[in-house]
Amino acid sequence: MVKLITLTTDFGLADPYVAEIKAVILGINPSVEIIDISHQIEKFNIRMGAYVLAAAAPYFPKDTIHVAVIDPGVGTKRKPILIETGNSFLIGPDNGLLALAAEKQGIRHVYEIANPKHMLPKVSTTFHGRDIFAPAAAHLSKGVSPSEFGPEVHRIVKPRFAKIFRKGSMLIGEIIHVDGFGNIITNFTAHHLESISVKENVKVKIGETTLRLRLCKAYAEVKAKKPLAIIGSHDFLEISVNQGNAAEAFKAKVGDKVILYRSS
Amino acid sequence: MVKLITLTTDFGLADPYVAEIKAVILGINPSVEIIDISHQIEKFNIRMGAYVLAAAAPYFPKDTIHVAVIDPGVGTKRKPILIETGNSFLIGPDNGLLALAAEKQGIRHVYEIANPKHMLPKVSTTFHGRDIFAPAAAHLSKGVSPSEFGPEVHRIVKPRFAKIFRKGSMLIGEIIHVDGFGNIITNFTAHHLESISVKENVKVKIGETTLRLRLCKAYAEVKAKKPLAIIGSHDFLEISVNQGNAAEAFKAKVGDKVILYRSS
Amino acid sequence: MVKLITLTTDFGLADPYVAEIKAVILGINPSVEIIDISHQIEKFNIRMGAYVLAAAAPYFPKDTIHVAVIDPGVGTKRKPILIETGNSFLIGPDNGLLALAAEKQGIRHVYEIANPKHMLPKVSTTFHGRDIFAPAAAHLSKGVSPSEFGPEVHRIVKPRFAKIFRKGSMLIGEIIHVDGFGNIITNFTAHHLESISVKENVKVKIGETTLRLRLCKAYAEVKAKKPLAIIGSHDFLEISVNQGNAAEAFKAKVGDKVILYRSS
Repeated sequence: MVKLITLTTDFGLADPYVAEIKAVILGINPSVEIIDISHQIEKFNIRMGAYVLAAAAPYFPKDTIHVAVIDPGVGTKRKPILIETGNSFLIGPDNGLLALAAEKQGIRHVYEIANPKHMLPKVSTTFHGRDIFAPAAAHLSKGVSPSEFGPEVHRIVKPRFAKIFRKGSMLIGEIIHVDGFGNIITNFTAHHLESISVKENVKVKIGETTLRLRLCKAYAEVKAKKPLAIIGSHDFLEISVNQGNAAEAFKAKVGDKVILYRSS
Repeated sequence: MVKLITLTTDFGLADPYVAEIKAVILGINPSVEIIDISHQIEKFNIRMGAYVLAAAAPYFPKDTIHVAVIDPGVGTKRKPILIETGNSFLIGPDNGLLALAAEKQGIRHVYEIANPKHMLPKVSTTFHGRDIFAPAAAHLSKGVSPSEFGPEVHRIVKPRFAKIFRKGSMLIGEIIHVDGFGNIITNFTAHHLESISVKENVKVKIGETTLRLRLCKAYAEVKAKKPLAIIGSHDFLEISVNQGNAAEAFKAKVGDKVILYRSS
Repeated sequence: MVKLITLTTDFGLADPYVAEIKAVILGINPSVEIIDISHQIEKFNIRMGAYVLAAAAPYFPKDTIHVAVIDPGVGTKRKPILIETGNSFLIGPDNGLLALAAEKQGIRHVYEIANPKHMLPKVSTTFHGRDIFAPAAAHLSKGVSPSEFGPEVHRIVKPRFAKIFRKGSMLIGEIIHVDGFGNIITNFTAHHLESISVKENVKVKIGETTLRLRLCKAYAEVKAKKPLAIIGSHDFLEISVNQGNAAEAFKAKVGDKVILYRSS
């Protein structure tokens, strides 16, 4: 069975960094297959990286190894970690990046990556993706046991995503992602909509704009350039514009508060 | 023999969408190889997707499976289809995206992808790339017969590319693509140039600009930043600027009319 | 043993060009693995391509075949070449692009790629990446001997990178790369810093700006948005801004002169 290693970084695609990671992995385990999740996470944006990784990870086969590197604290005391879940392995800095995907799958063990035997001989202070995380993933894919990488860790850093809370007849949530189409992805699920009796129409406030939108099943149910609400492909409520860019239209950005009103 | 699956989408590379498609494919058939044609087709631009797919497809080995997803009508009545040609298979929405590549190769059969057995168990209304097209490609690569995906379809949607027409001593065509270098790719071929006796010099009108250009064999036959005409690597007449950007220089964009004059 | 072929180009990812190169390679040798180093080298920027290739190449396994195509002179008299070093093979135009990586590894032989037997049957004048370099790499990966591609070449074009020179107590070098984070990568190494007694503090002039910076081991040793100096992951002196963009902050670009002062 071919082993899969995925990569999620904020390195972009113009520089040699991603290729160096792949070269190190393939130098250690030539038979592994490497799949890019994204290298265009916004620079230093751990929350966006955590969201994208958590969205994609469930679709990968069991025992996939996910390497993620958005790492503003590289070279400081933040720990390099390896998380073993019921489904997969996650490797990266202990700064919240891995926690969202890991918790969805159920964390079994977390280890600090501390054993120099499974690192490059020379470890830089600025590029642990290449020097620590890539070799760890490659050695893990060859059968090295997770516990051989270092001591068990009992508490990991979690990303700060707002919880949804209820205030009278309203639910207050936030924008967790804006995708390349400009779709505004909130942290409300179909379950939240039901809990305040939202059915065919959605009344929602984003920033200073209050919208009354039809809850559609397809973007093209409204005319081109018209807004709509929809439960998206990751089961979150999205505010979209058919063949347009909702985030631009409503000046919305990740982290903004979203208010969802009970249907009247 | 390794099976190849190619991907052409307007999903961009920042989001988890492309990785989810790859994860679904590799979960069903781990031994397939996936090659990206492009994920940076302009959003919703079916014509550009059709052009890029039709340009790249002929270079792939026989029996390659091409998946293309530029799909503004996802979730509506437009059909998911599988086209079998003499050379390859094409999978995507029936909106014109596949037709150009398919017709170049000779269409043998078209099937609607309707059999839920070859889809993900839960099909979203917004992401058929992941839930319908990716599993169809993976199952096809494992030997499922094209006719098992659904009923035969006898008429498909075609993209609207302008035909070239003659008016007196002029030929009127259009810009079918502007590439990343700014090369303006027209729908004129060497054959059209011959038909109105164009040899060493090309007189062409793009928008409001009339140009008299040397028909070169290499971009560097003219000085840096100077314009030229050339039969490009896909056998179409291109208007280019050596080491510059012709589309910017002449304010040209896809779909613009191009007039080619008989040489005097 | 799987053979690796890497690609470094200025083609971008929107057009069909990269996929055509991959298709040609896999059509000739389906069992090779292709790794992208970068397709987002600045258009026509041979120096940037040379730097990125030379940075990534050392991390790849022995006998990797590196194909690089930044080729403003395509179709003119510049030669297509194949360089054999002690570690790898490099294929591309003889315009300086390959020389930096090749010299780091030690050049053994250089051959002109002239044998039409190892090219596509029809060679365009505008896309040698697809028609000459891709098939050469694929045939080489299948065991064709380097000397079969054409006559030996005894002198190759070298990229013009400024040498570092000393002027009194100063060293004068240049910016060789600005990465996607805005890190300013100079051509000074730790060795140069030692030679003028630079230890904990770095006094450096970029353009009109003179900076006194702490020589850090990690970006996060200074506060967010504050500048620092650091020996980066390729052993060059970098001027950076923690979680910010140094190139924007100091209006620095590739090729700019950098003056490094003796510590007082």
